[in-house]
Amino acid sequence: MTTESRVRSPRRERTRERLLDAAFDVFAELGVQGASIEAVCEAAGFTRGAFYSNFASKEELFLALMDREKRRHLATLEQFAQRLDPAEVRSPEGIRTVLRSVLAAVGPHPDAERRWCVMSAEFELLALRDPSVAAGYLAEQRALKDELAATISRLLDALGLRFVVEPRTAVDLLLAAYAEASRAVLLGAPDDEGPNARIEQLVDVLLAPRQPAK
Amino acid sequence: MTTESRVRSPRRERTRERLLDAAFDVFAELGVQGASIEAVCEAAGFTRGAFYSNFASKEELFLALMDREKRRHLATLEQFAQRLDPAEVRSPEGIRTVLRSVLAAVGPHPDAERRWCVMSAEFELLALRDPSVAAGYLAEQRALKDELAATISRLLDALGLRFVVEPRTAVDLLLAAYAEASRAVLLGAPDDEGPNARIEQLVDVLLAPRQPAK
Repeated sequence: MTTESRVRSPRRERTRERLLDAAFDVFAELGVQGASIEAVCEAAGFTRGAFYSNFASKEELFLALMDREKRRHLATLEQFAQRLDPAEVRSPEGIRTVLRSVLAAVGPHPDAERRWCVMSAEFELLALRDPSVAAGYLAEQRALKDELAATISRLLDALGLRFVVEPRTAVDLLLAAYAEASRAVLLGAPDDEGPNARIEQLVDVLLAPRQPAK
Repeated sequence: MTTESRVRSPRRERTRERLLDAAFDVFAELGVQGASIEAVCEAAGFTRGAFYSNFASKEELFLALMDREKRRHLATLEQFAQRLDPAEVRSPEGIRTVLRSVLAAVGPHPDAERRWCVMSAEFELLALRDPSVAAGYLAEQRALKDELAATISRLLDALGLRFVVEPRTAVDLLLAAYAEASRAVLLGAPDDEGPNARIEQLVDVLLAPRQPAK
């Protein structure tokens, strides 16, 4: 998909983006399983032909949505990293302050994330039930985690920090905690149970200075 | 529900257990949403009257299933704890060995857990979509985590160990990692990505001797 994306014309890219925008709304309204390709085409104002010249199936469309969401989160993280000053993260308290800002930027948020969180949970369920969906889902998840691990490692390195476990393990644990925290917020867990506070504590135990203290 | 359970007669208890067993099979086959109360009654060999004298709704039935699964896992953990010798966990390597056995006993397992994992994911989705389901689901999840935190804290205490974060936070993080690992296994993640290995590493960073080393 990545190779293909490099050769897309601007017009084709716009068609694709409109189909993705429409899919997001239609999936949120009708559920991934309940939504038909026709409904997505209608909402986007395109024919089925335009759809199939971009996506082979509804599942491929959803994976492309996941890919787009991932790129947006990674871009937010990169922008954040560029504004960071290594001096800010010299102390554990400094790290926590920075982390709180990161979570405020990309963290679980009841309104903005609700629709995405619910449709992701549904797609994960479809993948758990159907091995032909599972393969693509797992590959997309793995690509996301690898990119995230690379981005965060580069960021930590610039800040003189490191994970005390493998970066890929740290990302797995952080994403699991993040997904759980997002769902808790959406289920209505009171703020004082602090889903974000738990991610902060996890980061706290996962991070260390690059040079172990003597 | 707990108060009520204390006064259940043995016959009523058997009816309830048979309804729960039947529900497990029917939910696994038809999905929680797709399963009707009639189908559960038929599989159990009971009338709707028997059902409604035990459960107010399909959602309450599922919450009772969650409660039963939780009690089974806690019982396994307790049995395990009773066989443990504090001398086994004096070193980080000893802790890891014990943890591996615990995970082998209660950890994500592709065959035994598949049906439960899939139906839990579906129920979580139903809760995310429906606030009236969310309240009960959240309460059940909270009760599970509180009990688990109490059980594990008692166990760690007997072993001269402690969590470096609040026990309830540790349990949240461990359960999130456990759910993620279970799903990865079911989605077909290869063994060398070691979902269990990640839980081990998480436990590694979360545990410390009760008296900090001097």
